[in-house]
Amino acid sequence: MSRQSNRTTDSKKMNSELFTLTYGALVTQLCKDYENDEEVNKQLDKMGYNIGVRLIEDFLARSSIGRCQDFRETADVIAKVAFKMYLGITPSVTNWSPGGDEFSLILENNPLADFVELPDNHSTLIYSNLLCGILRGALEMVQMAVDVKFAQDSLRGDNVTEIRMKFIKRIEENLPAGEE
Amino acid sequence: MSRQSNRTTDSKKMNSELFTLTYGALVTQLCKDYENDEEVNKQLDKMGYNIGVRLIEDFLARSSIGRCQDFRETADVIAKVAFKMYLGITPSVTNWSPGGDEFSLILENNPLADFVELPDNHSTLIYSNLLCGILRGALEMVQMAVDVKFAQDSLRGDNVTEIRMKFIKRIEENLPAGEE
Repeated sequence: MSRQSNRTTDSKKMNSELFTLTYGALVTQLCKDYENDEEVNKQLDKMGYNIGVRLIEDFLARSSIGRCQDFRETADVIAKVAFKMYLGITPSVTNWSPGGDEFSLILENNPLADFVELPDNHSTLIYSNLLCGILRGALEMVQMAVDVKFAQDSLRGDNVTEIRMKFIKRIEENLPAGEE
Repeated sequence: MSRQSNRTTDSKKMNSELFTLTYGALVTQLCKDYENDEEVNKQLDKMGYNIGVRLIEDFLARSSIGRCQDFRETADVIAKVAFKMYLGITPSVTNWSPGGDEFSLILENNPLADFVELPDNHSTLIYSNLLCGILRGALEMVQMAVDVKFAQDSLRGDNVTEIRMKFIKRIEENLPAGEE
């Protein structure tokens, strides 16, 4: 679906429950469409990416946040502003790598997975993988290539839900043809 | 996906933009999966129904609203409480039939369709048909059979978006076997 460009920042706040159920319908549909969990995971990541590259525009408009100084600031903005804005939660930022190029977001509760239980035949489904794609897509639009994946998932029996983010590189801005 | 029964009413408020984009991904996927708009419309209604029969439980818990006295009260609760809670908007209730069994919800803006434009080859797509299914499913769970459909849709060039709701009958509560 194409989108008009006259975006406004008028804010409609909604409870997350309808989103949770609609997301469940999406995952269920993908499980019908694709042969195995791996394909579904891939598809969710891809859909998330497409959402992320659009959502970033909305995010920058609403938050008035400029370019981050470093990856630590990026981490804080993601956890405290972006997650709060779009999912109503604030994950904690932890487990920094010594080099400062990797961290984890710990989600105490995950609105996408509220009340969900994975059926036994989908034990390798990364149910909330849309989130990884969104983060990857959004960050790419602000010139950051970042690897994003679930390290733990309470849906799969882990104690917490942990998204691991690894900075890969700064993406050079595309220059118009003929310039350098 | 099955859901655990230990539902809480702790409220996570989120901006609608992520929901809008995720819903767009769902509709796009269905357009790939099904041959024509009619099938997609049907599928959206069915998915909505399944969401509605679950969402009503959350709604009753959050709103503490009891049984409505009449269809007029039902209309007000849907517009002022339910739409506000789950979509952050308050449609107006209008166009009552003389018998009081039909009314319209007028949505000045529709979060599901924010910034969406229908491609030319999907001119008969009822993009937000999930909403009709949700209303139908939720009302059925409170013993009301209601016909719900879009009468106008600004996505399809109408001036406003109008959902028409027609009361069909009160559904008898199922009695346990052996009782009357």
